[in-house]
Amino acid sequence: MLDDVLQTIDSRRHQALAALKEFLSIPSVSTKPEHRADMKRCAQWLADHLAFGGLDVKVMPTGNGKGHPILVAKNKHVPGRPTVLLYGHYDVQPPEPLNLWVTPPFEPTVRENAVYARGAADDKGQVWCHVEAILAWQAHQGLPVNLTMLVEGEEEIGSENLAAFLTEHREQLRADIAVVSDTNQFARGLPAITYGLRGLVYMEVTVTAADHDLHSGLYGGAVPNPANILCELLATLHDADGRVNIPGFYDDVVPISEKERQMWRDLPFDEKAFLNDLKLTSLTGEAGYSTLERKYARPTCDINGLTSGYQGAGAKTVIPSTASAKVSMRLVPNQNPIAINDAFVQTLRQRCPQCVKLDITCFSHTPGIVVPIDSPAMKLAAEAIEIGFGVKPVLMREGGSIPVVTLIKSTLGIDTLLIGFGLPDDRVHSPNEKFDLDALYHGSRTAAALLERLASLR
Amino acid sequence: MLDDVLQTIDSRRHQALAALKEFLSIPSVSTKPEHRADMKRCAQWLADHLAFGGLDVKVMPTGNGKGHPILVAKNKHVPGRPTVLLYGHYDVQPPEPLNLWVTPPFEPTVRENAVYARGAADDKGQVWCHVEAILAWQAHQGLPVNLTMLVEGEEEIGSENLAAFLTEHREQLRADIAVVSDTNQFARGLPAITYGLRGLVYMEVTVTAADHDLHSGLYGGAVPNPANILCELLATLHDADGRVNIPGFYDDVVPISEKERQMWRDLPFDEKAFLNDLKLTSLTGEAGYSTLERKYARPTCDINGLTSGYQGAGAKTVIPSTASAKVSMRLVPNQNPIAINDAFVQTLRQRCPQCVKLDITCFSHTPGIVVPIDSPAMKLAAEAIEIGFGVKPVLMREGGSIPVVTLIKSTLGIDTLLIGFGLPDDRVHSPNEKFDLDALYHGSRTAAALLERLASLR
Repeated sequence: MLDDVLQTIDSRRHQALAALKEFLSIPSVSTKPEHRADMKRCAQWLADHLAFGGLDVKVMPTGNGKGHPILVAKNKHVPGRPTVLLYGHYDVQPPEPLNLWVTPPFEPTVRENAVYARGAADDKGQVWCHVEAILAWQAHQGLPVNLTMLVEGEEEIGSENLAAFLTEHREQLRADIAVVSDTNQFARGLPAITYGLRGLVYMEVTVTAADHDLHSGLYGGAVPNPANILCELLATLHDADGRVNIPGFYDDVVPISEKERQMWRDLPFDEKAFLNDLKLTSLTGEAGYSTLERKYARPTCDINGLTSGYQGAGAKTVIPSTASAKVSMRLVPNQNPIAINDAFVQTLRQRCPQCVKLDITCFSHTPGIVVPIDSPAMKLAAEAIEIGFGVKPVLMREGGSIPVVTLIKSTLGIDTLLIGFGLPDDRVHSPNEKFDLDALYHGSRTAAALLERLASLR
Repeated sequence: MLDDVLQTIDSRRHQALAALKEFLSIPSVSTKPEHRADMKRCAQWLADHLAFGGLDVKVMPTGNGKGHPILVAKNKHVPGRPTVLLYGHYDVQPPEPLNLWVTPPFEPTVRENAVYARGAADDKGQVWCHVEAILAWQAHQGLPVNLTMLVEGEEEIGSENLAAFLTEHREQLRADIAVVSDTNQFARGLPAITYGLRGLVYMEVTVTAADHDLHSGLYGGAVPNPANILCELLATLHDADGRVNIPGFYDDVVPISEKERQMWRDLPFDEKAFLNDLKLTSLTGEAGYSTLERKYARPTCDINGLTSGYQGAGAKTVIPSTASAKVSMRLVPNQNPIAINDAFVQTLRQRCPQCVKLDITCFSHTPGIVVPIDSPAMKLAAEAIEIGFGVKPVLMREGGSIPVVTLIKSTLGIDTLLIGFGLPDDRVHSPNEKFDLDALYHGSRTAAALLERLASLR
């Protein structure tokens, strides 16, 4: 039966791309209020496609109607078959800065065997792989498992309403295993199962001095300058070895095992290609770790934005009234996000001079995770990937955070398979985001094979 | 005769305010190309008023027509009388941020005995004091000196075309003394002669890493973060004592004499009022110096703007591609701006890690100056101020930079009297800039008396 399903996927490659382009053309930017109607339209568009495939689909409000809707689609569940919860998100990051896009972010365009658009890889392209697989199974004898597909619209804004939704609908969402496709292949043509993710604590730090901008000649040298002080504070966050300089920050970090180090050393990581792709001449980071180790399994502290004073062309001689920074920390498994948040706040408060006001806000908290690499589900997933891509997958970790994995574990009590089809150079969150057409094809095949393999779970 | 002139000024207080409001309503923002026509209109508006007073006025192009025009007005020069060069500027700073203005920046509004508008104190209000004095003299027996009034339109953008203009028109601009009113009273009702100014070197520093913003999860910890590195670089610019940490920076700084320290200690500086006005709880700066000493006679290094990465509401998980800062240094007399520029560039280059690209641009260079406090012109100016304000002026320095003073010295070979009518809380360069109506009145009287006193120069 799987052969027939794969045959259907093969024959639908043009239609799959056409549908994905339509999906990508909807500007479902969850963070911007002006895209509220687009969010609804996007959820409904996806619901229509799944309903066409014979699934029972609901587009459900969240946050008492103030959140973005969550789509839940199910086939007819048959007692005794394993239940698979498939998670994805239909919302995308803001596309700015617009001037850096070669083609507009919501006018999907194919160049060099990839489709370029905001959300192409994160996460609409990957969601579409699963939709193709579902439609293909439904066109034959129907899905081989009990499937619940949940697609949310708030992943890029911290999944604010997801926890409450999962808790409220726990019974209907009960499953044996979850599948999330929001990660990458290790490299082009080298698919991966991701068994670890980093967590995230995202803060905003604001330093305020005088209540208005001051003339830098008349006041400079005699009044506190919030921009100077902010930079001095932020500069204390790393030591000379590139380690995060917050007391207690590393207390709960589990050292990387020699087994993992060896496994990652064996991966065909091409540092030169990595540098070339980013137009960098050299790398930097915590002393004593390789690039993959730094990405996969070491915590960070990075400034994500700086804002103060005059930002236009040329000169304006002001002492800014205020200076602010977005600062986020990527956490590894076993670090406690609340404790890290508290340590960050306390450290900056201690280091900040008394002559200015310091405000610190936290936008989100997610712990890092690792899952066992030798479970039955992992083995079935590896088989499915080999069918989909024609090569065995590698095992890797990923530096990003997928809070839903933690949430699924804590609310539904099940593990998640992280099987991603993106490529490391897909520019997710950046201008000119893309999704490879080969990834779309092999990903759809993998998704179809995965449903067949997971039918044998338990 | 002076009494008649002062009488005229007294009787014209309402007209003076009405004219100044009209002057202030023209948005002569020199830095913005969209205000090019307003710049011309402003120069012509002022020219019309001076021509109405019987002066010979020319509005002359600069920079081969690419600069903003310079207005030159003269009375009929009589051989044997001293010649006074009066300098002012009709351009203003950009008014942003607009939302902080109580009334719009180009709709001059009187509140609590002051007129609020961009340029009110810097410098249109002060220019108008001189225009009132000139019109009053002309309404009687005519000006008692040979007067050349020069009003430029590029002071707020570094007086780009002024040096060439002064050099080219050196013969027509020949004078015995220059008068510049672009400084402050020491405090309300306590007028001042300013005998020293700080200089300025204004730079932009840009750190660039990858050629596009990167996902902070996928890349964080493994790639250079330009925002982290920029903050680390800028944090090295001061030591723990608040001194500027650039090798050689203080080499040419002349220590403050005990005589000056005593003179400034005797000034009625109210630090509590200073704090209250700025809504600050405490001050900071170079260890070992008082607030006035820090403002008047110590060099600084201040960040005037910071720009990097995500600046909107909430969170965006990017490693910015680039981070930049506006950084300016206020210099004291005897420091060489070129040497300071070079030391700044060299120091940052040495301190910047090799993994990023560092670009440093300089926007302007001006040395600090001091003028002798016991010259005949100073004494005459003090007498004029006493007539205008009814109290003796104090002698002070100012922390700002007025590059034209250096330029006048180098191109025309003459000293400048700095007699300013602004108040320290006029919020120049900030939202809600104002000019006191008493300053307008006493300043006009002082300007009239000054012309009479300077008639006896030589």
